[in-house]
Amino acid sequence: MNLEKFISMNSSHEIVIVQGLGFVGSVMSLVCANAIKGDYAVIGVDLPTDRGKQIIDDLNNGIFPLVAEDPKIDQFYQNTISKGNFFATFDEKAYSYADVIVVDVDLDVDKKNDSLGTLYDFNVDLVSFKKAIKTIGEHCKENILILIETTVPPGSCQEIVKPIIYGCLEKRNLSTEQIRIGHSYERVMPGPGYIDSIQNFYRVYSGIDEKSADAVESFLHTIIRTDEYPLTRLENTNATEMAKVLENSYRAMNIAFMVEWSRFAEEAGVDLYEVVDAIRLRPTHANLMYPGIGVGGYCLTKDALLASWSRQNLIGQNESLSQSEKAIDINDQMPRFTYEFLQKHCPNLKDSKILLLGVSYRGDVGDTRCSPVEMLFNYLVETGSMVSCHDPYVKYWDEQSLNIDQDLSTHLNQSLDIIILSTGHSIYKQDKTVDKIYNLEPLLIFDTIGHFSNKQINMLKNKHTVKVLGRGDI
Amino acid sequence: MNLEKFISMNSSHEIVIVQGLGFVGSVMSLVCANAIKGDYAVIGVDLPTDRGKQIIDDLNNGIFPLVAEDPKIDQFYQNTISKGNFFATFDEKAYSYADVIVVDVDLDVDKKNDSLGTLYDFNVDLVSFKKAIKTIGEHCKENILILIETTVPPGSCQEIVKPIIYGCLEKRNLSTEQIRIGHSYERVMPGPGYIDSIQNFYRVYSGIDEKSADAVESFLHTIIRTDEYPLTRLENTNATEMAKVLENSYRAMNIAFMVEWSRFAEEAGVDLYEVVDAIRLRPTHANLMYPGIGVGGYCLTKDALLASWSRQNLIGQNESLSQSEKAIDINDQMPRFTYEFLQKHCPNLKDSKILLLGVSYRGDVGDTRCSPVEMLFNYLVETGSMVSCHDPYVKYWDEQSLNIDQDLSTHLNQSLDIIILSTGHSIYKQDKTVDKIYNLEPLLIFDTIGHFSNKQINMLKNKHTVKVLGRGDI
Repeated sequence: MNLEKFISMNSSHEIVIVQGLGFVGSVMSLVCANAIKGDYAVIGVDLPTDRGKQIIDDLNNGIFPLVAEDPKIDQFYQNTISKGNFFATFDEKAYSYADVIVVDVDLDVDKKNDSLGTLYDFNVDLVSFKKAIKTIGEHCKENILILIETTVPPGSCQEIVKPIIYGCLEKRNLSTEQIRIGHSYERVMPGPGYIDSIQNFYRVYSGIDEKSADAVESFLHTIIRTDEYPLTRLENTNATEMAKVLENSYRAMNIAFMVEWSRFAEEAGVDLYEVVDAIRLRPTHANLMYPGIGVGGYCLTKDALLASWSRQNLIGQNESLSQSEKAIDINDQMPRFTYEFLQKHCPNLKDSKILLLGVSYRGDVGDTRCSPVEMLFNYLVETGSMVSCHDPYVKYWDEQSLNIDQDLSTHLNQSLDIIILSTGHSIYKQDKTVDKIYNLEPLLIFDTIGHFSNKQINMLKNKHTVKVLGRGDI
Repeated sequence: MNLEKFISMNSSHEIVIVQGLGFVGSVMSLVCANAIKGDYAVIGVDLPTDRGKQIIDDLNNGIFPLVAEDPKIDQFYQNTISKGNFFATFDEKAYSYADVIVVDVDLDVDKKNDSLGTLYDFNVDLVSFKKAIKTIGEHCKENILILIETTVPPGSCQEIVKPIIYGCLEKRNLSTEQIRIGHSYERVMPGPGYIDSIQNFYRVYSGIDEKSADAVESFLHTIIRTDEYPLTRLENTNATEMAKVLENSYRAMNIAFMVEWSRFAEEAGVDLYEVVDAIRLRPTHANLMYPGIGVGGYCLTKDALLASWSRQNLIGQNESLSQSEKAIDINDQMPRFTYEFLQKHCPNLKDSKILLLGVSYRGDVGDTRCSPVEMLFNYLVETGSMVSCHDPYVKYWDEQSLNIDQDLSTHLNQSLDIIILSTGHSIYKQDKTVDKIYNLEPLLIFDTIGHFSNKQINMLKNKHTVKVLGRGDI
């Protein structure tokens, strides 16, 4: 199969291109290829990097590049294979066939953290995003919809995307009258509800003008169950771009709040879980979070910075979003606090044999991007601890260039001093796992995320020392 | 009526004393005197200050000292009058008759804000709280329950109340064995559900030891509908004290978050209300707040500081709760931002005739403590604007020593340039009020809290200039 052949085989279909085949784009491709109302042929385009080529090869050869617990992913993927309406390529020519282009490329923040985790500087890197948009402008037809899903600094559609696309079209002597540019952010939640978090969830959208907003609306109706989850149109692209980073800044701030209070609770001998449960009875406080090892993933660790950067650079005010920036800073230090907590309860960390249960940033997902476990791991290794890692979803830990033995029994059969529960994978709180841990020689068990149940903790405490972050001396 | 006579008339009843007859204590007295299960005689005790004497006089002469919209207040108060089971006094001897003493005195924070509202220092003033506790210890029987409801820095029951009470009893050659000391914080919400916010709401409680916690539990069962709103016992008094200040810090932080983002929204021409409504569809984000003129009242403006102070002074760590402190600082500056917003849209503020609708900090309540309207008022007066104020619940604005004409028509009949809607009293959004405003000569209407409906705004905009804080150019 090549691009031309795919196009000719799907000549009766509208062509949707998804630009960027990462954790959002690859699944978005499946959702478009299994559209509720439209009957699209979908082309996934990524860059010809090693990683991009691997993903493209995999996708065209029946291997879906993401490992996650959602059975719908395989079902949707197999469906596209049998329908023959999904193709992946790095050939830029693909853009010239598109009727709709969905942009799901990354837009990164370069964060400068010192060795304590303190965030002392950051910069928003627009180079690759601008390049991606320019590539579209250099190839696309003049009458298509370009839908930005990437999380961008507020102001980007108006100040960056529109000028680039218009500029390219004008250079190619094409009209800009029929081009539609819109923004609608995804709320993808990797895990068991991966597909549903796109197809069955509320969407907010906008366009750079009314016709663009109309075009976005029409398209979203074909891929999302808008009867159950009505769309919300906002007034302009600044508004939807802001909504996305506000959502994630809010969440990051809620976590940061708990980071500080969990340390206070430790100091005061208070079980913060008990406190949170008591407070959550109030409807206004129902989304108070539990303390934990820290925040990870691609979004919550940076989106507040995109917003603050935008306020200072795109919107043009010389003021930051200080509280939201502060939240990122506090969260970035949490793995260090976790380490210090461990140090306090285990003075001879240097020679300890430690097993980390989980390296991804989120339970039941194999996504290690910005995982807080990484910083804890680094501290332990630097201290001289002998650290082994298990994760049922991660065979190779990219950021650490580390192969991970996925057989939990092997890990639990070695001699150990400390077990650190660092990611909330379901398997770890299965009774058979807890029983296995119980049967080990007495050791220190450190639950950094409150994953074990009270019953399991009480059982384990009969033999082992158990500490839970934020729970004082339970 | 005097104290001895009241005691002798109520000799068959258990005596509950409520110490401190402010916004919480006065209503708590009513709840105790109308107990669900117990049959208490209640003595309200306050200090012989001018204000204290006035409240005591009023209470003993059939005048309830608070104005609020809750019909239950009058109903409960009349009931105590006909039962003759409620008496107010500043006579310290009263404590010697008590079986239960509920402490509802103030515990203040001295905040140092500069002229921009920036919080540059603060101190927790324990003097009067300690004195109140000492007065109890000097008079109380040795077998009573002392229940602290005052919001205190975490650690206070253990580090302050217990040593003072034990010390006093020992000095009086009394045993400390039967004294019970506990903590259970109120969640009083002044307004239409004033009584219900005590009697029909969840409670968290603890004791300095198990017997104390048991005693608190027994007492709370008699005054609160615990069948519908079960009690939650926490492990120690640090935990409940922390829960209270955490609740309010969390709320203050949520507001501060919106303060920063509402300014960003203004700058970016975004209607933040629209954004918040779109985001609130997510259950995890349902309690996102709307922007507004700022935060007021006795609790949200200081409780985070109590917590941070406690962390540094009572619990003994040399670290603040930086994010929670920052929230107070940001919120304290909000009235200035509101003023600056007004300045931007009305360059000749100096000679403007301005009507402020509402001076209390909260809708449908006459509580002006720490009202954000005060700072806005001061800025306007300093600028040279001619400011008049209306508030249906405030006849005399204590903090400004200002009589308030409560006839809205008089205010609206004068010549005006600007109307600022500053407190969310229901009367202001009644159609008859909006119609009256519509009929004025064209002016600038500034809704600082998003109180008017969209329909009302659209109507008003036909004739007037309307601005809403955080809504860009609606």
